[in-house]
Amino acid sequence: MDDPFTEPADTRETILGAAFRALCEHGYADLTIKRIGEAFEKSPSLVYHHYDGKDELLVDLLEFLLDGFETAVSGDAFELPPRARLDAYVAAMADPGGVDDEYAPDGRFLVAMVELRAQAATDAAYREHFDRSDRVFRRFLERSVREAAAESVASGDGAVPREAERDVHPAAVAETLQTLAIGAMLRWSTTADRDWTGAVREEASRYLSTTLPAVDPEA
Amino acid sequence: MDDPFTEPADTRETILGAAFRALCEHGYADLTIKRIGEAFEKSPSLVYHHYDGKDELLVDLLEFLLDGFETAVSGDAFELPPRARLDAYVAAMADPGGVDDEYAPDGRFLVAMVELRAQAATDAAYREHFDRSDRVFRRFLERSVREAAAESVASGDGAVPREAERDVHPAAVAETLQTLAIGAMLRWSTTADRDWTGAVREEASRYLSTTLPAVDPEA
Repeated sequence: MDDPFTEPADTRETILGAAFRALCEHGYADLTIKRIGEAFEKSPSLVYHHYDGKDELLVDLLEFLLDGFETAVSGDAFELPPRARLDAYVAAMADPGGVDDEYAPDGRFLVAMVELRAQAATDAAYREHFDRSDRVFRRFLERSVREAAAESVASGDGAVPREAERDVHPAAVAETLQTLAIGAMLRWSTTADRDWTGAVREEASRYLSTTLPAVDPEA
Repeated sequence: MDDPFTEPADTRETILGAAFRALCEHGYADLTIKRIGEAFEKSPSLVYHHYDGKDELLVDLLEFLLDGFETAVSGDAFELPPRARLDAYVAAMADPGGVDDEYAPDGRFLVAMVELRAQAATDAAYREHFDRSDRVFRRFLERSVREAAAESVASGDGAVPREAERDVHPAAVAETLQTLAIGAMLRWSTTADRDWTGAVREEASRYLSTTLPAVDPEA
């Protein structure tokens, strides 16, 4: 994953970039405003001038990164066709080390995301962010599922059922992929075992292959 | 979920029971040895006599609960037939409030489990526990998938493929269900949105219905 803060546009982005690097290096629990200051050779007082504390800064970092993702996927300029996009999404969460994609999150970032997401269990500001985050990723996945289903109609892949049998909603498939990807991220970050990653990627792919022909792209 | 500590056998179980109640009440971040002492009207010094600190105690609590689950599922006395058992497992994680089962974890317990699991991102003792935990649940799920697949052979459910086409391994399905359930647990604990729970339960059920006839129960 490339550092999204190589050319900060203003002080906010400079601080967020430092927070991003410090978070990946130290993890959530050991992150302090002092360490964030060190990551861009400024005094902690500059950070305190903009943020009341570590969590306010980290929620702003999460919002900034999510805004970036939302902008990146709002157009039509996808590098990958829809089905490959879905497979790549699952792979990026289940096996971040094995994905050769500059946009895929790396392992340290995934671990930090899990730590931040766990804060949402008890902190309303994080919770509000992850509610929005799940909506943004769900919309991206739903759109990709819709396009992949339309493609499977056009190409006549597999045993395409009659129109009346295309009764699976793209949103249901999107929610399922999203839940699977979040589970993969949590497993990957909290266990040493990696044996499951291949099986989950293969089963997700088999699920898509059997499900997409049953998805109604117009639903 | 019933309190698994209503009849503690010894001091260890008495302390673990107090930790369990205090954890569900206060959550991980606000849990202290003092609050655990208050939960069974003893002085914190009794707790310190047995444990070096909060995390050592909580890892022992996790191990105790996992031992209980492992014992409960080691026999053949399941209340539910295998397929219903798999559906109930997904439901317990995706919508703990909606499950009427004394063995299903309740919401507060799920939230606490997510907080503890997040510790495993940076703490080796938690990590070792969740590695074991995922193995135990995987074995339970793999066994249930195997039995449900054998049942689908016996009953001739759906379009059962020829024997040569039963090429999905029960372990791959088990890992996928386990990953989906963990993702559901994390989503449920960290967002306010509940709209996805029905779709995920339905898609998991559809995945099982199309997959079980392709699973080799002898693999």
